[in-house]
Amino acid sequence: MSDENDPAELEVIGWDGDRLRFLDQTLLPLQTRYVLTAEYRAVIDALKRLAIRGAPLIGIAAAYGVALAAKQIPDASRGELLRVCDEFAASRPTAINLFWALEKAREIIRTGGSSAGIKENLAALAAELHEDDRRRCDLIARHGADLLLSVRARRAVPDDAPLNVITHCNTGARATGGIGTALGIILEAHRRGGNIHVYVDETRPLLQGARLTAWELRRRGIPHTLITDSTAAALMLTRTVAAALIGADRIARNGDTANKIGSYALAIAARAHGVPFYVAAPQSTIDASISSGDQIPIEQRSAEDILRIGGTEVAPERTPVYAPAFDVVPHELIDAIVTEAGIHRPPLFLSIGARNHD
Amino acid sequence: MSDENDPAELEVIGWDGDRLRFLDQTLLPLQTRYVLTAEYRAVIDALKRLAIRGAPLIGIAAAYGVALAAKQIPDASRGELLRVCDEFAASRPTAINLFWALEKAREIIRTGGSSAGIKENLAALAAELHEDDRRRCDLIARHGADLLLSVRARRAVPDDAPLNVITHCNTGARATGGIGTALGIILEAHRRGGNIHVYVDETRPLLQGARLTAWELRRRGIPHTLITDSTAAALMLTRTVAAALIGADRIARNGDTANKIGSYALAIAARAHGVPFYVAAPQSTIDASISSGDQIPIEQRSAEDILRIGGTEVAPERTPVYAPAFDVVPHELIDAIVTEAGIHRPPLFLSIGARNHD
Repeated sequence: MSDENDPAELEVIGWDGDRLRFLDQTLLPLQTRYVLTAEYRAVIDALKRLAIRGAPLIGIAAAYGVALAAKQIPDASRGELLRVCDEFAASRPTAINLFWALEKAREIIRTGGSSAGIKENLAALAAELHEDDRRRCDLIARHGADLLLSVRARRAVPDDAPLNVITHCNTGARATGGIGTALGIILEAHRRGGNIHVYVDETRPLLQGARLTAWELRRRGIPHTLITDSTAAALMLTRTVAAALIGADRIARNGDTANKIGSYALAIAARAHGVPFYVAAPQSTIDASISSGDQIPIEQRSAEDILRIGGTEVAPERTPVYAPAFDVVPHELIDAIVTEAGIHRPPLFLSIGARNHD
Repeated sequence: MSDENDPAELEVIGWDGDRLRFLDQTLLPLQTRYVLTAEYRAVIDALKRLAIRGAPLIGIAAAYGVALAAKQIPDASRGELLRVCDEFAASRPTAINLFWALEKAREIIRTGGSSAGIKENLAALAAELHEDDRRRCDLIARHGADLLLSVRARRAVPDDAPLNVITHCNTGARATGGIGTALGIILEAHRRGGNIHVYVDETRPLLQGARLTAWELRRRGIPHTLITDSTAAALMLTRTVAAALIGADRIARNGDTANKIGSYALAIAARAHGVPFYVAAPQSTIDASISSGDQIPIEQRSAEDILRIGGTEVAPERTPVYAPAFDVVPHELIDAIVTEAGIHRPPLFLSIGARNHD
């Protein structure tokens, strides 16, 4: 399941010991631009403007960012480094992976010994989280592909018909440290010869589905069709959709799942049409400290995200906008949550919380 | 309810006896450009590229277009004019108002006497349909405002709180010969002091909500908030939405309603949250010849509508796209259909068909 056989594979983030190199995802697919920086604030800026995005990758990038700050600030005190962690924590409020990675960084800062030792340990932490996410993605893909491919028999999709899967936003190699979560499952099911066809929600406002997911699927040679988000419901009525599969930015103990705005609409449509709805995420996405989704803080994006697309104004200037970046899918609408530990089904959602932060 | 008191009012279509003048709606709100033409094919082109859009206005524009052809083609034979009607009929497949208006034009061509008489009668027909739609819009607004304002008491919205209405696409003075259908109701409810606030679905792919509805509401001073289409469901969970109100492109005898893609998703979300879902349309939108929505032909738009927004490519070139222009809301999800004749509720939907083409 590694990317080694894909010559066009773009490493989304990498650290040469001095500088961080990351892909500016806001420009994809039109431009492939890398940022090479020794400034930790460039990483915070990239997180804020979604140049680096996707819950697992946000956590990894923050860990690299704190390691960068330790390198950048001469003789940084523990207090200074903890304040850097606070700066990173303020960049995006919803993805729990960010806070989880920062908590591990804070632990090192508080207990890591000498300044040189802290520096080294922070760099090691980032590399370890990165490598760890790669392994977890592979496991998620394996468990999830088992689940996804079992849908063909359960929903009586003929052997020669494509297994139509719908997905929302981008959950691939650009959103994680590995091959992805929901998209990683799709890649693995395709690799196993599952005859997968993907309906890709374009995912307004920032169009990660159109820009990133469609692009990744094309590069992998996986058949796909792009739709506007509001077409998903009509699609389920007029064509056979075998399953819906999304990632997650934060999962509460009861299984309520915060994910990209539009996930809830997709879940309602899926339930109305009897389409199984699956969530895929590493255990680090589970927030064991909260019992339900209404405790998840939802980031509000700026009006510009909606009023302007590329260089084009699409609504009158200063039109009032409501732009939550995420919504919460209640656990009642989720048929399974796939993590590296396996497939969790209701009413077992509660058990996943106990495994958090292991 | 007339537009006389609005100095900024733009006449969307007008005929000076020789030439047709219409607003190119693809450029709004950034540019207000009128097309002045003596070529009927310019009208067909405008219909195809949605420079003229909105089911009632499509019918009116086609009637003007046929009148223009009768003027333009020297000594046009009946056969030639009937072929012009066929050309117009092929411009858009879903809005029934188009075929209804063309049927009236064909009747004149077949039975209208001399060439000069036909010419005159076609021009009179267009003017009459235009004026007629104006009156019907006013009646729809009156009935619909009664219904909409009654929601405040029924859903116990406090007197000092805004009555939040969600709408999809554009159904105002740019979509009809008058003040609009769903948006006409909103204008009238606002005029009556109903303390209305409108959530506007941006309506991908062509963004008629963002470009046209937000702009009309601003010009009328009606409070509004723009959202992406996939935010509607989350909105209903987190904020109070009193009612959903849309227009229609074709209504079957059983009440099944074809309307802009995304209407079905909105209806599912409304039902899941107990939000009443209303359709507003003139009787000419009802197709008495079909018993249910699955007989409504659904226009497929080109991939370009989704792959490109203004000058910006938002997905890889040649990405496969599924782009229906409309979907069908099953009558089970509709709480009322407002026409100029009054408010139809289930199980009375069947009765509206009998009034068609009166």
